[in-house]
Amino acid sequence: MTGVHPMWLPDEAFRALGSRRVLVAVGPDAGPVAGTVVAEVAAATARFGGHLVTAPVSVDEVLASDVVLAILGSGGQVGAEPAVQAALEGGFVLGADAPMRSGAFTVERQDGTTVVVAADAAGLLYGLHALVRRGEDAFSGSHQVVRDQPVNGIRMLDHWDNMTVHPVMGQVERGYAGGSIFYTDGRVRDDLSRVARYARLLGSVGIDAVGLNNVNVHATEARLLTDHLDDVARLADVFRPHGIRVFLSASFAAPLTVGGLPTADPLDPAVQDWWASAVRRVYETVPDFGGFVVKADSEGQPGPFAYGRDHADGANLLARALAPFGGTVFWRAFVYDHHQDWRDRSTDRARAAHDHFTPLDGRFDDNVVLQVKYGPMDFQTREPVSPVIAGMPRTRLAVELQVTQEYTGQQQHAVYLGPQWEQILAFRLAEDGRTVGDVAAGLPEGRPAGLVAVSNVGTDEFWTGHPLAQANLYAFARLAWGAHDPLAILDEWAGLTFGDDPAVRAAVHAVLDDSWRTYERYTAPLGVGFMVRPGHHYGPDVDGYEYTAWGTYHFADRDGIGVDRTRATGTGFTGQYAAPWRDVYESVETCPDELLLFFHHVPYTHVLHSGSTVVQHIYDTHADGYDEVVRMASAWEQVRGRVPDALFDRVTQRLAEQERSAREWRDQLRSAFFRRSGIPDATGRTIY
Amino acid sequence: MTGVHPMWLPDEAFRALGSRRVLVAVGPDAGPVAGTVVAEVAAATARFGGHLVTAPVSVDEVLASDVVLAILGSGGQVGAEPAVQAALEGGFVLGADAPMRSGAFTVERQDGTTVVVAADAAGLLYGLHALVRRGEDAFSGSHQVVRDQPVNGIRMLDHWDNMTVHPVMGQVERGYAGGSIFYTDGRVRDDLSRVARYARLLGSVGIDAVGLNNVNVHATEARLLTDHLDDVARLADVFRPHGIRVFLSASFAAPLTVGGLPTADPLDPAVQDWWASAVRRVYETVPDFGGFVVKADSEGQPGPFAYGRDHADGANLLARALAPFGGTVFWRAFVYDHHQDWRDRSTDRARAAHDHFTPLDGRFDDNVVLQVKYGPMDFQTREPVSPVIAGMPRTRLAVELQVTQEYTGQQQHAVYLGPQWEQILAFRLAEDGRTVGDVAAGLPEGRPAGLVAVSNVGTDEFWTGHPLAQANLYAFARLAWGAHDPLAILDEWAGLTFGDDPAVRAAVHAVLDDSWRTYERYTAPLGVGFMVRPGHHYGPDVDGYEYTAWGTYHFADRDGIGVDRTRATGTGFTGQYAAPWRDVYESVETCPDELLLFFHHVPYTHVLHSGSTVVQHIYDTHADGYDEVVRMASAWEQVRGRVPDALFDRVTQRLAEQERSAREWRDQLRSAFFRRSGIPDATGRTIY
Repeated sequence: MTGVHPMWLPDEAFRALGSRRVLVAVGPDAGPVAGTVVAEVAAATARFGGHLVTAPVSVDEVLASDVVLAILGSGGQVGAEPAVQAALEGGFVLGADAPMRSGAFTVERQDGTTVVVAADAAGLLYGLHALVRRGEDAFSGSHQVVRDQPVNGIRMLDHWDNMTVHPVMGQVERGYAGGSIFYTDGRVRDDLSRVARYARLLGSVGIDAVGLNNVNVHATEARLLTDHLDDVARLADVFRPHGIRVFLSASFAAPLTVGGLPTADPLDPAVQDWWASAVRRVYETVPDFGGFVVKADSEGQPGPFAYGRDHADGANLLARALAPFGGTVFWRAFVYDHHQDWRDRSTDRARAAHDHFTPLDGRFDDNVVLQVKYGPMDFQTREPVSPVIAGMPRTRLAVELQVTQEYTGQQQHAVYLGPQWEQILAFRLAEDGRTVGDVAAGLPEGRPAGLVAVSNVGTDEFWTGHPLAQANLYAFARLAWGAHDPLAILDEWAGLTFGDDPAVRAAVHAVLDDSWRTYERYTAPLGVGFMVRPGHHYGPDVDGYEYTAWGTYHFADRDGIGVDRTRATGTGFTGQYAAPWRDVYESVETCPDELLLFFHHVPYTHVLHSGSTVVQHIYDTHADGYDEVVRMASAWEQVRGRVPDALFDRVTQRLAEQERSAREWRDQLRSAFFRRSGIPDATGRTIY
Repeated sequence: MTGVHPMWLPDEAFRALGSRRVLVAVGPDAGPVAGTVVAEVAAATARFGGHLVTAPVSVDEVLASDVVLAILGSGGQVGAEPAVQAALEGGFVLGADAPMRSGAFTVERQDGTTVVVAADAAGLLYGLHALVRRGEDAFSGSHQVVRDQPVNGIRMLDHWDNMTVHPVMGQVERGYAGGSIFYTDGRVRDDLSRVARYARLLGSVGIDAVGLNNVNVHATEARLLTDHLDDVARLADVFRPHGIRVFLSASFAAPLTVGGLPTADPLDPAVQDWWASAVRRVYETVPDFGGFVVKADSEGQPGPFAYGRDHADGANLLARALAPFGGTVFWRAFVYDHHQDWRDRSTDRARAAHDHFTPLDGRFDDNVVLQVKYGPMDFQTREPVSPVIAGMPRTRLAVELQVTQEYTGQQQHAVYLGPQWEQILAFRLAEDGRTVGDVAAGLPEGRPAGLVAVSNVGTDEFWTGHPLAQANLYAFARLAWGAHDPLAILDEWAGLTFGDDPAVRAAVHAVLDDSWRTYERYTAPLGVGFMVRPGHHYGPDVDGYEYTAWGTYHFADRDGIGVDRTRATGTGFTGQYAAPWRDVYESVETCPDELLLFFHHVPYTHVLHSGSTVVQHIYDTHADGYDEVVRMASAWEQVRGRVPDALFDRVTQRLAEQERSAREWRDQLRSAFFRRSGIPDATGRTIY
């Protein structure tokens, strides 16, 4: 474990708390999460000369503390009760005006004492870390009040980890940071100390669920559910003290492949019994098991279609096995024809999820969450928001984001995705003003679910390959909690990770603030996606996916480019949107420039709202994007000597690769579109 | 071993010989190859009711035999001497008018006795199989004389087999027929019985050398030379009775990586000593070891450039270690910049081998053979002949062909390469009329070497994945021996493999005769290569290699396509050819259509010698090529029930895949060039 980077929890972040007198009032039986709070304070105070008080104490002792951390209420916290009462009497605890949701906490400061009160141990843990994030500010001034609770009940990270190294996809599918921290050589690691570090990091930013294995469930991993339950329990034991429940990706064919039944038909009683038994055994071993993540009838994974059943039949099968134990099924909506004939222009992959799932709205059980990728395609740099999100009001919907940078630079490129995610979550789906984030949270009166993302960590010493990609993991968690401003989140992350050096913060902002749009500029013009090398998805290949079975086309010819998805003349995809978007996207006059080629096939000479033509836009943005990468590398150079050398060097190496790659993107796309269009770059820059 | 296909040596092929009285006069100490002759005859006569006589015999017994197989001369064949003398007395043995080269033999028939006399055991083995190939015809008529000897002394198959499964390239690099027959789990197989079958098959058609491991030498395989010599000896023991010597691919860096020296500089005495010692140990274990195959300073393999030395320094280093033992170095001329900048149009990969090697002509030791790929690029379906072949008169040159179908359908497509190879070998290099085949053979007064090819076999039950790909292995060996007519070779192969059913022969011809040109039609128009998926090289991708570092471009834009390699306005590659080709290729007026785009960039509207335009040629040939595949599949359907079901089914499945793939090639290329050119197909056929 020596040399593993601490991410946003370096020891130094605990100085302000650790140098003070801290009373933690949770009682001896408050459970493992409360134990984590005590242990965090104990470690911090031991390191920085402060003092931890946990035993039952007098009011005087409470008032003599610099910090009080307490769980509100009487149940189970006998020892804490007097202290909490004292705190309440002190007047600086939030009144019990409403039942607090799990994870809520309050911080208040008066008369020299900072108090964190929470409804439960998880809330106290989150309050502790909120205090840590504020540093010395938490102990100055007065009457500062923070009342915070998560907007989303589900704040989940999926891990596409395989137990063995897949011959094509590696150990972590779409992982760019080394091997799996969970598995080695086909089994769960003996030494889970790194997983414990990871759990602590996730708990500190409010993640409350993790999927433990790849949604493409291979043979070995299918047996996590049966033969390897003890190992699942060991992982659950590591995550539990940080308020995190574990989930397994399950194979819909498990009754056949693992159970030896002749069918996996969801309506077959023997299949139902098999799942019921399997789930019961899981809960006997892991009492707080979260449930399943399922990719069914998608990209070759088995599913209910084989038996003439639909996705509701499939999801409810598992849901009913889980329901007695409080478990949940995350059923992915990423379903489309991946054997499409490119010659057939009537099939549109963008339509697929909406076509498959909206007819099923209302048929899913309460403990089914439909997990919908943010866009209709597949985690591209730029897509419109998926029309499924607005289209299933009677279904719990979790929105799925991708922290791992599959199509966004693979953690070789510095791409801070916070601004993309915030733009998605803030997108107003319809005329009533409800946003994507509202649907996920079940606001104002929907059915709450939350956010899910694919994690980006591995055995790399910096966890994420590119050290600055840690910011994406942090930002996802904070956005899932309910924070809004991606640049403020980035600033918070930089302060925790690098300390208070203004030059470093400035460099981090200079590199990352606009990096998603920069990446878009040199890779994905005007909503065109998938111009990447097939298979691994890194680097440019204009026609790489053009004649394939994956449904990912741009139809660029000598005259123009783009996919006509209009109702008038195209695939009709625009009709899946509610007003106003069904009309906004339908017309080239109103369609936003950044999505123009997603919805329309236009000539290269088409004039954008920006005043540029399509082809000149391609020429300009690719040149500009590369120039910005050069500027990013130059900004980073300013922090030499101000961050640890190993981290500086790693980021510097990655920026060099980003510059090389951005130059390829620039030159290849400029050449390819010049060769097709024959239209010169109006600025006269070199086209090779 | 049950179920492994016998290729061209089914038991039935031995009926004519095996049903007769056969005298084999080689003597008891004639060595392992002579032992193979005896064993073959023994097995055949036992199976088909004939009779084998090997002991010293009287002249009467000789004259009573149907067949006499004898080694000419007195040395070591005491027992045979009377028989041979008798045969000579009978007048039907070739007179000793010239020293016979190894591998030569004579067949003569007179007075009811068929006699095969050879100069050595290998010649007798080849004579035996010549007899087998003739079947009953060898025993009818009279005064038939065959005098046969190999045109090439070197008739070699390289095996790109890895001992372990490479994560990207698999166990057999560019292998399409399963795993390695030599290795499993990082070592030589315990059971070499399949290798023995293979050695027998190769020996029967005159192959006399095999390279045992991949020219890209990985860490495990580098130790064949040292730690695994006993295993190499086991393989040599299996090949030896069939007249075949074994070679190892060696890593030029072995003194560093295996030997622990600080350098691999060929001029360093310690490096020279290391190689001398290593080679001495090899010959202590394998006294008839053939030598080394070396890929140096090529595609990342180590070589002499690292020390400021050239390829002659490198090759001679190994040659001098091998010389005392009669060993040979095969030094590959496949050297080019594989980190080329596609933006740089001054670099031309086609020039590379000539630029690197012709200045070294005359500097290579006598036991160095420069192994030159037939074309200047890399085993494409159509390339001009490499100008290196005519360019190094003072160097022994072996021409390298590729039996494994890397760029020619990967043994999914039925592509008989005999016509391509014959066209290459018969190509007249210069105005003196000398052909490629002449240079390899050292004719009329050059320095003899021979032909080398990459094998196409693996653990597949049919050896080659596609059963009809066996014909390519057979054809290479027969062409290397000196046979000329590829269709006659195919007929010979079909007769041995399938017997005398005229319907089967007709179908084999209908499928294979024109299959190389058919494959060219639907994949590689007018000398354009590399329009394949990068990495695995299967299936169409017009721009797949266009913007890469591999030097493989066609520069197709909206106006035209092709590479200008002229002296006048291009890379000057035409200048590497001798007259008349330097002028024939230089001019669009004289350049053959099939190589036009290899040498010239022309508009899509350019009119070919055929009368068609370039773009219409692309449209037509891709459509025609697909139609021919449909016809091939239909022809094969006629042999249902006439060949074993498993073989019929395998070929049928492959033809279905060929049809599917050819349709993709047709439609993708037609679409891609229509999208670029905007010129419709004059025939009005659908373009998607």
